[in-house]
Amino acid sequence: MDAIRWKGNVLSLLDQTRLPVEEVWLDYTDYRPVAVAIRTMVVRGAPAIGVTAAYAYCLAALAGEDLDQARAVLAASRPTAVNLFWALDRMANRAEDCGGDPEALIAEAVAIHQEDVEMCKAIGLHGAAVVPEHARILTHCNAGALATGGYGTALGVIRAAHAQGKVEMVYADETRPLLQGARLTAYELVCDRIPATLIADNMAASLMAKGKIDLAVVGCDRMAANGDFANKIGTYSVAVNAHFHGMPFYVALPCSTIDLSIPDGSGIPIEERDPSEVRTLYGVQTAPAEVEVYNPAFDVTPHSLVTGIITEKGVVYPPFRENLARLFGNP
Amino acid sequence: MDAIRWKGNVLSLLDQTRLPVEEVWLDYTDYRPVAVAIRTMVVRGAPAIGVTAAYAYCLAALAGEDLDQARAVLAASRPTAVNLFWALDRMANRAEDCGGDPEALIAEAVAIHQEDVEMCKAIGLHGAAVVPEHARILTHCNAGALATGGYGTALGVIRAAHAQGKVEMVYADETRPLLQGARLTAYELVCDRIPATLIADNMAASLMAKGKIDLAVVGCDRMAANGDFANKIGTYSVAVNAHFHGMPFYVALPCSTIDLSIPDGSGIPIEERDPSEVRTLYGVQTAPAEVEVYNPAFDVTPHSLVTGIITEKGVVYPPFRENLARLFGNP
Repeated sequence: MDAIRWKGNVLSLLDQTRLPVEEVWLDYTDYRPVAVAIRTMVVRGAPAIGVTAAYAYCLAALAGEDLDQARAVLAASRPTAVNLFWALDRMANRAEDCGGDPEALIAEAVAIHQEDVEMCKAIGLHGAAVVPEHARILTHCNAGALATGGYGTALGVIRAAHAQGKVEMVYADETRPLLQGARLTAYELVCDRIPATLIADNMAASLMAKGKIDLAVVGCDRMAANGDFANKIGTYSVAVNAHFHGMPFYVALPCSTIDLSIPDGSGIPIEERDPSEVRTLYGVQTAPAEVEVYNPAFDVTPHSLVTGIITEKGVVYPPFRENLARLFGNP
Repeated sequence: MDAIRWKGNVLSLLDQTRLPVEEVWLDYTDYRPVAVAIRTMVVRGAPAIGVTAAYAYCLAALAGEDLDQARAVLAASRPTAVNLFWALDRMANRAEDCGGDPEALIAEAVAIHQEDVEMCKAIGLHGAAVVPEHARILTHCNAGALATGGYGTALGVIRAAHAQGKVEMVYADETRPLLQGARLTAYELVCDRIPATLIADNMAASLMAKGKIDLAVVGCDRMAANGDFANKIGTYSVAVNAHFHGMPFYVALPCSTIDLSIPDGSGIPIEERDPSEVRTLYGVQTAPAEVEVYNPAFDVTPHSLVTGIITEKGVVYPPFRENLARLFGNP
């Protein structure tokens, strides 16, 4: 399963806002509508946003446009996921080296894309090692093939554990307001024939109390140097509940999602999105039009609630600040 | 605001499945469609179900039907809320005394209804005493005028505290899957001009972490003798998060919701509802049709997570088993 394709100098994105009901691919030859696609979540998920932005940068180069401006427009599309800035930095460095040569930039974007898939597979293998036999695993939002270059981070762990015959059931939080769990994670799991049960976000705690979940694994949009991390709103509640029930809680991410320039989670910028996402669904009004809404796209989970950080270089355990630094010091 | 009316031997229910977009009243002269209305949640909320069932019992008496059968059909409509059985028992006892006289039964149903409103107002006053100045209050689902004979239990506390000028903000969990918080609580709060902010259920923990909530107050569908209680799915997660953040957590209910015959929460029957409630919303498909769904209507919160139980007779504090028993022993 994939959601980002590059062929004949055209970027194609699977429109994730229309899944699981329709599979529609959108083609792009201009970088500006790609920035809109990122903002409107045609494509979402920190690694996938990075890969998409890299290809969009190539579109600007192919059209002979101002690359600094393209970088600025793309960087302004969403604020929280650090992979966006990481990928644009890498493309800009390459542009400097190659004088903006489109073919060299395309090769760099393809490399970012391929490396992302390889990183996901490495994350999957490292993560599968912490999954027990007959595991019942909870995940939140979508950190799957659709959120990455392919294969997924949290779902990469689940895919690898499933390939090893260890997955009894995956519980997928539907993930309000935009239902990435219902629309995307459930879709990926059904497509891959991995046993899956969809729940509303508020049901996870009750399953934990009944002893029906063995561990939780989630993705990440940005991690600070101490292991605090931002991920889809609701992740923090899963972490608090896992902690209360003595259940392991893992976060899976490529190292490109770790932002060592931010000492702790308080420095991660959190995007607030339009109130209509909570007041309506698919255009159907579900609340009084006059009511105020609080709609942060992410929350921050403190490292104290994290059992382990699953990266492509291995699983990192506490003390996180020291061990994450070591990860970068000794690659 | 009210949702249940009796006039000229006709029971009228405000169709809560169509709020807040449409205010449609449905009229009933036969008890059987009332049982369907309870099951399909045209009317919902433990006290409101009790009041509705009492009136439906009157419809059976007016039509000269078998009252035992009417009682059985109504009792089978929903399994968790104990007020349903409490109200039907009270009506059946009255029927025995009065030989099934419809007028006497109507007087009994009207008394149940009026007593419920009075109990809600008493709950409100007792509860308002525990609300601090400038309070930011979280509530889950709808335990309001729409869930009771009028005024509400948890929203009764909020209404009374608001009348005393103590409410700075009410955060209303939208309450998936049926969105009673978005559709009903937000509607009641907007109608009464009480400051309200709607959130997705998974956002509450993040607000607690930011210190933006001072206390939580919820309703109850059935409480066991030790203070464990069933309420709308997601209540338990609110309680766990409140506990983790050192935040007071109150449950508000009339004594008719306490079932002393059940020693603890493990004995409360929990209704599971149709998977389509999670896979679709207003007929719009939000998940793959093939995915399994777990859809319990309620969860059980252990008394250890409860700060206080707000009843019409006062606020009960731990030890709950002893103090609840005292409540019934010395009315």
